[in-house]
Amino acid sequence: MGTPVAAVRKVTAEDYVDILSFYARQMHLLDGLRLEEYADTFTPDGVVDHAHRGERVAGREAMLASMRAALPRYRGVVVRHWFDHLVIEPSGDGWQVTYYSLVTRTDAAGKVEFEPTFTVRDELVRDADGRIRTRSRVIHRDKPDA
Amino acid sequence: MGTPVAAVRKVTAEDYVDILSFYARQMHLLDGLRLEEYADTFTPDGVVDHAHRGERVAGREAMLASMRAALPRYRGVVVRHWFDHLVIEPSGDGWQVTYYSLVTRTDAAGKVEFEPTFTVRDELVRDADGRIRTRSRVIHRDKPDA
Amino acid sequence: MGTPVAAVRKVTAEDYVDILSFYARQMHLLDGLRLEEYADTFTPDGVVDHAHRGERVAGREAMLASMRAALPRYRGVVVRHWFDHLVIEPSGDGWQVTYYSLVTRTDAAGKVEFEPTFTVRDELVRDADGRIRTRSRVIHRDKPDA
Repeated sequence: MGTPVAAVRKVTAEDYVDILSFYARQMHLLDGLRLEEYADTFTPDGVVDHAHRGERVAGREAMLASMRAALPRYRGVVVRHWFDHLVIEPSGDGWQVTYYSLVTRTDAAGKVEFEPTFTVRDELVRDADGRIRTRSRVIHRDKPDA
Repeated sequence: MGTPVAAVRKVTAEDYVDILSFYARQMHLLDGLRLEEYADTFTPDGVVDHAHRGERVAGREAMLASMRAALPRYRGVVVRHWFDHLVIEPSGDGWQVTYYSLVTRTDAAGKVEFEPTFTVRDELVRDADGRIRTRSRVIHRDKPDA
Repeated sequence: MGTPVAAVRKVTAEDYVDILSFYARQMHLLDGLRLEEYADTFTPDGVVDHAHRGERVAGREAMLASMRAALPRYRGVVVRHWFDHLVIEPSGDGWQVTYYSLVTRTDAAGKVEFEPTFTVRDELVRDADGRIRTRSRVIHRDKPDA
């Protein structure tokens, strides 16, 4: 174990906070059903891969179509996505991020139900404006080995 | 979209960490039922507005009275507040913060129940001592549109 | 209240982010059942005290034996640990950290159950390589007063 940890590229505190802030804004948009603004938090060639159901959606138009088709599932509830345990590694022009996700559905009576837990791997990039976007999101539903 | 993101005032990493640390200490006090110390994490003129039930409580004495009156609801459980997705924007002499809140109630048998999810908007200020306090808290229960 | 907050030693943003990153990696290992790598995130003399059941486990070998004995309880589920509200105080050659922990169990059908909530107090140290490890973990199950 020769290499001091400090010699390995690691995420800076400023970038870590920028990434948490990016995810906060991104989830406020998704959960607020501001779908076009949410799609704009992805790069134009951005991809979302729901690996657990074999559904890969590429590009903002396809993302929008997919989300609009799913809207009936969200009638009568407020959805909130909760993230934790972000492992962030600088990579190329951005970062690889792996994190846990918990999803709640709150109904009109205040009852809270939970979707399965998920593990997510993102590629994030910072563009010329300094704005962070998601280039790739791969979502795995947590499933025990048979 | 002309202005580079870097030209917009954004929260520094140091302030972001100070704010997370403030909330951690504040919630440890509230959930530990250390009510006077909790009230002291608000400015003397601090306000809590439970918007979803039309109850606005102004000032530390009123906050204490309101919390003491509510104590019977918490007999037999340990309450924990969980926060996520903080969007923090510098504002005047402090920050505006919008975040998600999840609330658990754990009973003697270890069973965990959930209150409805909430979205909260705080005004935080840093006083002359450098100490952060909450000047205003507006709490909205997540409720789907009819 | 004479001492300005700035004169009190507080955790730096860089260390705070390093600590969050440490916990993220540590929990990914534990929840992924990578038990030897998980034990390596403790100091050789590290201790885990499950205070609520009077079980104190000292040293990596004892930790591994204890976790392997517990594996049957985790058959058929994916466990995820969620942390929040970290209060981090510099201490000696590292930090004292107190935080909340929520634990989910997700089964093959995607159903999520919750273990009781916990409050945890850790001693963390940074070794000569710059690597953070846990020297001591004391876990208290949240339990209301009788």
